[in-house]
Amino acid sequence: MITLTTDFGFAEPFVGQMKGVILSIAPKASIVDLTHGIRAHDIAAAALAIGTSYRYFPEGAIHVAVVDPGVGSSRAPIILEACGSYFVGPDNGIFTLLKRDCSEGIAWRINSRDMALDSPGNTFHGRHIFAPVAARLELGQSPSALGKPFDGMVTLPFPGPAREGCELRGEVIHVDVFGNAITNIRVTDVEALRGVSRGALVAEAGGERCPLVGYYAEGVSGPHALVNSDGYLEIFLFEESAALRLGLDAGSKIRLTGDS
Amino acid sequence: MITLTTDFGFAEPFVGQMKGVILSIAPKASIVDLTHGIRAHDIAAAALAIGTSYRYFPEGAIHVAVVDPGVGSSRAPIILEACGSYFVGPDNGIFTLLKRDCSEGIAWRINSRDMALDSPGNTFHGRHIFAPVAARLELGQSPSALGKPFDGMVTLPFPGPAREGCELRGEVIHVDVFGNAITNIRVTDVEALRGVSRGALVAEAGGERCPLVGYYAEGVSGPHALVNSDGYLEIFLFEESAALRLGLDAGSKIRLTGDS
Amino acid sequence: MITLTTDFGFAEPFVGQMKGVILSIAPKASIVDLTHGIRAHDIAAAALAIGTSYRYFPEGAIHVAVVDPGVGSSRAPIILEACGSYFVGPDNGIFTLLKRDCSEGIAWRINSRDMALDSPGNTFHGRHIFAPVAARLELGQSPSALGKPFDGMVTLPFPGPAREGCELRGEVIHVDVFGNAITNIRVTDVEALRGVSRGALVAEAGGERCPLVGYYAEGVSGPHALVNSDGYLEIFLFEESAALRLGLDAGSKIRLTGDS
Repeated sequence: MITLTTDFGFAEPFVGQMKGVILSIAPKASIVDLTHGIRAHDIAAAALAIGTSYRYFPEGAIHVAVVDPGVGSSRAPIILEACGSYFVGPDNGIFTLLKRDCSEGIAWRINSRDMALDSPGNTFHGRHIFAPVAARLELGQSPSALGKPFDGMVTLPFPGPAREGCELRGEVIHVDVFGNAITNIRVTDVEALRGVSRGALVAEAGGERCPLVGYYAEGVSGPHALVNSDGYLEIFLFEESAALRLGLDAGSKIRLTGDS
Repeated sequence: MITLTTDFGFAEPFVGQMKGVILSIAPKASIVDLTHGIRAHDIAAAALAIGTSYRYFPEGAIHVAVVDPGVGSSRAPIILEACGSYFVGPDNGIFTLLKRDCSEGIAWRINSRDMALDSPGNTFHGRHIFAPVAARLELGQSPSALGKPFDGMVTLPFPGPAREGCELRGEVIHVDVFGNAITNIRVTDVEALRGVSRGALVAEAGGERCPLVGYYAEGVSGPHALVNSDGYLEIFLFEESAALRLGLDAGSKIRLTGDS
Repeated sequence: MITLTTDFGFAEPFVGQMKGVILSIAPKASIVDLTHGIRAHDIAAAALAIGTSYRYFPEGAIHVAVVDPGVGSSRAPIILEACGSYFVGPDNGIFTLLKRDCSEGIAWRINSRDMALDSPGNTFHGRHIFAPVAARLELGQSPSALGKPFDGMVTLPFPGPAREGCELRGEVIHVDVFGNAITNIRVTDVEALRGVSRGALVAEAGGERCPLVGYYAEGVSGPHALVNSDGYLEIFLFEESAALRLGLDAGSKIRLTGDS
């Protein structure tokens, strides 16, 4: 199985062309779109989407990620084998969370000269390099047949929250399509804080108190917080956009404290 | 075959994750996106999309619908067997048109405790309950193995038009991507009106006369009406948005009368 | 394999319904979305998407294209066999580039009376005619069993650039999702110009000099031009929208000259 994550949107035929290339080489491949709505050139957002998603796919799945402003430059095209999966894309930090969360990972630099489709230009390695490489992995070729061992992968900073007494200080890392603001505070952080706090936990975001509840419909008036199904603390407003109403975006500061 | 209908948009990896869960359990499942562009939390719009679409899929198809603001609350997760198909989703009215249009339907309340994937939170039953349940139906498990008989499904009002002499009074129920305004007046209503009217039928929408024609290119200047391929009366403007020009939205009043 | 290209967007269930129809007839068909984000009624944009994409799919692939404002009128529904592929859609110019680029092509007018699904209206031939026809081609039926030989296909003008001495005069034919402005100047035109010019080539677009480079990251400050992976000259601004900054849209004039 092959998944695709890009910033190509849905208005261009780019993703369809990648699928055509894959299916020309591996006609029985099952291809799943993870998302093509990553903001243009936002490598960190793609890293987060892949880092929270690969675990829902079968072992051995091949995850192709193409947010690639450096296409054609000296940045390496790579294969990463980690957490029982393969990841194929540019070495620009897009696989940072795999490096962090998987106990071991081995990378290869793709031998582009042998792998690439013929092309008059150098603007679309998703179609000319990553798609054929994913198809060959799908056919059972080993990464070592497609590239050479590669060290020193680029990583992006994904800082966790800081704890000070009964308070966690974190930040928004993503605003989702519903306007929910997902933070870098994890369920384990929340549990640790709960262990040392008296009373209920309350988040503060955009200057507003956001009491911690269990599910969306438990907080129908005013902003609230919950631990979402990915295990991240999330600020929400029932059936509205918390991000719009509280002025939150990636980087906005969040606090979570024991109620005083 | 499994179809998916959600309000998740295409910018998040949510739909891709659901597919990963389904294919991890039922690797050969054929999955079709019905639409993920339902307006956030608009249960009635999802009900309409599913109610007009299921008939185009093979018998036995499994239709998963996730527009679910009540996720995590006491609202029931259900399977509905109706019209030769299965429908899987929250009991919030999203399957109203199946209850109305299928002569018989049987529902089960999903046994979430046994069916749900492990999750630290309660924000995404599409991934943690509905996807695995759909996959098990696809593998041939019976609904009665996945839940208990369930009565009293929630339904939403979908009122039909009112007829008074030679006039039908209805309303817009959906504006499509082209700006066509689809109404709750059905082809059978139109035929009944034609039977009692003299002369051509004319719709009135947004204060404008909209003569009834047979296809779009037959009404190239000014607003017109036609019966569309789903059997609904539709107000259109050739290669333009009738909704924008006539100020129409869901709920706007429409009349259809015999020309005087 | 069947691909789909439409202007239906992703908010409606139209594409999903077409897939349901196809899979009801040809259950094992592999269906790929080429794009559904063609601007409403923009036949030329669909022609370009198909004309640059079909070559990435296996021989024998069936490409369905539905940008069809004339649906229901006398415009012919056709099958075109060209370049080792099948193309199915309305005869409105949407297959112009295949006629131009493939040395031979044979067309059939689809026998709609036999092929169409029952329908109360005439607004959606994608679902009622083109989908079932594509499914039957996928099952191995020959075009001559589905229609009659057809001559005189509609074509749209896709003018190439004009060369005058050391200068090419062309225009923008498409602005992509990143804001790159793709022109009608091809790699062969560029090579021919290079053969008669001294010094580096420079494009002029929106009143700005755009030096020709090899890949995006080679032109990180100010607007530049390159030959993209489809072999078209493209005006870009690194990680920004050249179209927005230089005021470019389809039809904007572009010059490419030998540096003086």
